[in-house]
Amino acid sequence: MKDIRSIEWTDGSLRLIDQRKLPAELAYYSCTDYREVEFAIRDMVVRGAPAIGAAAAYGVYLASLEFRDLSGGEFSSKLMEAAAFLEKARPTAVNLSWAVRRMMRRAVEEGEGDPGALCDILKEEADRILSEDIETNRRMARYGNELVPAKAGILTHCNTGALATAGWGTALGVIREAHTSGKEIFVYADETRPRLQGARLTAWELVQEGIPSRLIADNTAAFLMQQKKIDIILVGADRIAANGDTSNKIGTYMLAVSARHHDIPFYIVAPRSTIDFDIGSGEEIPIEERSSREVSHVDEVRIAPDRIAVYNPAFDVTPAELIEGIITEKGVLRPPYEESIASVREG
Amino acid sequence: MKDIRSIEWTDGSLRLIDQRKLPAELAYYSCTDYREVEFAIRDMVVRGAPAIGAAAAYGVYLASLEFRDLSGGEFSSKLMEAAAFLEKARPTAVNLSWAVRRMMRRAVEEGEGDPGALCDILKEEADRILSEDIETNRRMARYGNELVPAKAGILTHCNTGALATAGWGTALGVIREAHTSGKEIFVYADETRPRLQGARLTAWELVQEGIPSRLIADNTAAFLMQQKKIDIILVGADRIAANGDTSNKIGTYMLAVSARHHDIPFYIVAPRSTIDFDIGSGEEIPIEERSSREVSHVDEVRIAPDRIAVYNPAFDVTPAELIEGIITEKGVLRPPYEESIASVREG
Repeated sequence: MKDIRSIEWTDGSLRLIDQRKLPAELAYYSCTDYREVEFAIRDMVVRGAPAIGAAAAYGVYLASLEFRDLSGGEFSSKLMEAAAFLEKARPTAVNLSWAVRRMMRRAVEEGEGDPGALCDILKEEADRILSEDIETNRRMARYGNELVPAKAGILTHCNTGALATAGWGTALGVIREAHTSGKEIFVYADETRPRLQGARLTAWELVQEGIPSRLIADNTAAFLMQQKKIDIILVGADRIAANGDTSNKIGTYMLAVSARHHDIPFYIVAPRSTIDFDIGSGEEIPIEERSSREVSHVDEVRIAPDRIAVYNPAFDVTPAELIEGIITEKGVLRPPYEESIASVREG
Repeated sequence: MKDIRSIEWTDGSLRLIDQRKLPAELAYYSCTDYREVEFAIRDMVVRGAPAIGAAAAYGVYLASLEFRDLSGGEFSSKLMEAAAFLEKARPTAVNLSWAVRRMMRRAVEEGEGDPGALCDILKEEADRILSEDIETNRRMARYGNELVPAKAGILTHCNTGALATAGWGTALGVIREAHTSGKEIFVYADETRPRLQGARLTAWELVQEGIPSRLIADNTAAFLMQQKKIDIILVGADRIAANGDTSNKIGTYMLAVSARHHDIPFYIVAPRSTIDFDIGSGEEIPIEERSSREVSHVDEVRIAPDRIAVYNPAFDVTPAELIEGIITEKGVLRPPYEESIASVREG
């Protein structure tokens, strides 16, 4: 697993694992144009909050290459346009705008110099975002592993592994750390309808790593809690508000509610870049509504009558009071979150 | 919808709507042998607790026809064997054994007479089980409708409609009654993984009836409750213990937990034949575990890697304390359930 790179700059292009094709096929999707990067994010070739951030960073770099022969003023304005376009590919995960803005801040710092030189600087910055993410994940994994009992049933949702990040993973990174550190863990992976990232991607990573595990329909989660099979729940995040409210893949909130009912600790694992310090609560997080086809079809198989209407929000918001802690690369943030989150705002 | 008969005795055979093929195709599956009825129940050609009860009753009748030329003693022993075989087709829904035992009780009452005459009596008894179920559903629907507000968002799970019964439905029967009585309802139907009875069957019935509704991934249910879109939750049951603990399709328990968290009334709708007066609590209800293929595949599409293990319980148990009321044809049973359930035991 550690060798599998969901995002890689190679041979002058951004090479992504095409996550739409797993687990049937390990195929790649190459981008030589920032518009292809935007499509890859929007169509979920690449998904997972940290991964789409890193991919978008290379999107900004690809745009800079495309516009490098323009005059300084035109270059800047075209680059800003491309950045805004990339930022809008998906609305919920804040890592996307975080990475794009970091790239643009770097561009502005360099000022009105030679676009060619700026391209090189933007390449370095994208590389840095990618490598920092792996380092961040490793640090979160160590903090998180301190919370995992020596023998534990662990429930997780969606995919938060190497595929969802630059490598290693957030929630699945903690699980990977617990496994490699020799703990006797057993993982239950929610299949995560409608896009089935748990069945398609998390199960694939668990099998690759040889981590003892079982795949379940999302409907089975509370039943497992009732049977005392779950000791800890670990999930990722797409955006965390300043008060700790957390948006993540649809279904996360129902798990958090069930965890509270059964008195099971429910943790978020996410890098600091997932925190949106500018919004006060989860009510301000935009929730992406995706195509009804994701619910009415599985690949080409129609599973619902054609005249039924569908409601398909891709994310939900878990209120801070249901969250036991937020595991970041700066340590485990605990309630009251207004304070603990503010404490990691700088640096 | 009222014209669609999931179960019908016609032209000397038991004709079932093949529910494995909906919504793509309205096909029929004919049984002229009790072994075909057992297969139809086991493979979910026919499903839904009341429907499998009625189908099994005709299975006993088909067995009696097959053995009618045997001597009295041999006839009885073969019939009892067939009944036991039918009763084991699926373990959780008690309506199956309720219907088979009612048929066998009728056979015993008739004693050691002419097998040919007994066949006719068993045919009448199976017809009676079928027609009584429709009448029972209509009565439950009227009791249940009294609990539905004039304007209501309703959440339901799995399929509990005309397809799951001899006609009209249990939980979906209440919804149908609310709609036809002119109430302004909006239904959210859980797709109900893994077998997708909500997407394939409930959505199909809702479209047929023109009831305003939307299909959702099961993961979306608590998010809707959080947004105050749900005023009442109505689900069916496969077996109810004497203390009110209720087994129903996997995912029901998680809905009940979420309903409690949001203070939304959660009702079971089920005929008296779903109550197992002989067991004290839900702990005694056998939970069927079905094939891993139901989770790893959708039709022929593989959605999980082939080496991942799967856990696939088909039902869960909702403890009585999470249930606001049990809507039966005898009225709405309320806590304490030991008393209200005991009160409907006779008659």
